[in-house]
Amino acid sequence: MVSKSKVRFIRGLCQKKIRQQTDLYIVEGPHMVEELLQWCPQDVEEIFAEEAWATAYASTSPACKDRLHTSSLHYVVGDELASMSCQQAPNQVLALVRKRTPAIAVASAGQITLALDAIRDPGNLGTILRTADWFGIQHVVCSLDTAELYNPKVVQATMGSIFRLSVAYVDLAVWLQGLQGLPVYCTGLQGESIRSLSPLAEGVLLIGNEARGVSENLRVLATHQITIPRYGHAESLNASVAAGILLAHCGNG
Amino acid sequence: MVSKSKVRFIRGLCQKKIRQQTDLYIVEGPHMVEELLQWCPQDVEEIFAEEAWATAYASTSPACKDRLHTSSLHYVVGDELASMSCQQAPNQVLALVRKRTPAIAVASAGQITLALDAIRDPGNLGTILRTADWFGIQHVVCSLDTAELYNPKVVQATMGSIFRLSVAYVDLAVWLQGLQGLPVYCTGLQGESIRSLSPLAEGVLLIGNEARGVSENLRVLATHQITIPRYGHAESLNASVAAGILLAHCGNG
Repeated sequence: MVSKSKVRFIRGLCQKKIRQQTDLYIVEGPHMVEELLQWCPQDVEEIFAEEAWATAYASTSPACKDRLHTSSLHYVVGDELASMSCQQAPNQVLALVRKRTPAIAVASAGQITLALDAIRDPGNLGTILRTADWFGIQHVVCSLDTAELYNPKVVQATMGSIFRLSVAYVDLAVWLQGLQGLPVYCTGLQGESIRSLSPLAEGVLLIGNEARGVSENLRVLATHQITIPRYGHAESLNASVAAGILLAHCGNG
Repeated sequence: MVSKSKVRFIRGLCQKKIRQQTDLYIVEGPHMVEELLQWCPQDVEEIFAEEAWATAYASTSPACKDRLHTSSLHYVVGDELASMSCQQAPNQVLALVRKRTPAIAVASAGQITLALDAIRDPGNLGTILRTADWFGIQHVVCSLDTAELYNPKVVQATMGSIFRLSVAYVDLAVWLQGLQGLPVYCTGLQGESIRSLSPLAEGVLLIGNEARGVSENLRVLATHQITIPRYGHAESLNASVAAGILLAHCGNG
């Protein structure tokens, strides 16, 4: 039985303000919590789980059993999970997690850093992080007006990639101006087609806002303008689809 | 002033059952309704709009003025639009639209047809159709258990591409077996990397369900197995991101 004040506290973390005050956030569902326990066990404060999930998870491997037993685990019953959850369909387990130390914006020779200018939709941000992780990107740098990393919709849409990426929030114009000699690829409706471009080997891949693309003050700081060629009639691509196509063109292979 | 029974009728079209009984569906918002009037004016039954939108649209061009004046247009005031709408944020205009005659599944030499196996999420289906339209695909063939084309979430996520594509629903196994000599590219976690593959010039690009990928009974009917190479740790890609990366590899250029 979880106390009412604890339930209220956790539920409060659906709000950005409370996440900012406490430096805590919520991770939900078996897949996400298992990725959390594998990649960032040190961040876990408490786990609230149905006993059936805990038993199944602990029996997966001795390492899983250890991870669970060193966590502060509480069993939930009935609709306790639903009363804490930020999700429409709460699913077996919820973790209370400490935010990481804010990441430092990094762009190094020999690798691609992804830079996001004002991606506002949490689902898009989460999906872009998941895609970046698939393609082996390690560093993501977001403008200050990009959606908040610990928004539950962002966290869940990453499908676990949030635990593996370094995601920094900075003034992108200042940061881009400080880069030394690395190429900066600005994406948009104009520029060189990725069809005629070799896979991008290093530098910054700059992706813009869902509605207006990359801001003009950032665009002028780029060394290359690139685009996804259009052969049909759609006016634009969804932001996370466009990001995926561009990331697939990075030469991590 | 729109009658209460009319409001109730339109609101009912948020339900699949009512869409099936009436062969009608709803299109919402300026961008979508303007695309509708441009590409499928013959399908429009009635338009319910704030006068400000109608005035602005009619003043765009003489063609726009004509399209609007040959439509059955009703002005709405106050919260009338909200009471009809399927959207959380109704936006200026809503159209009552007749479904098209069901499309016939087509795969022709010299072009790519997109085949979707059980894409269940309406947002994913709409986004995939938008992306297909961007890349110049004309024919999409869906399994019978793919999300319904006229679901409001699908319609809105297409951003207008629904008016330009032929989208058929068939038993995919039967249809694939009837194809004569065209390549069928099955996508999944195994197969030849698209990095080492020339852009696909013709045939069927078969994309699978969000959770389980392409069904085994369809996979065995494919002539090629292809995959998006992974360099990082994410377990999978979002279905519409994966579809976008694969469509970007089709040689419509």
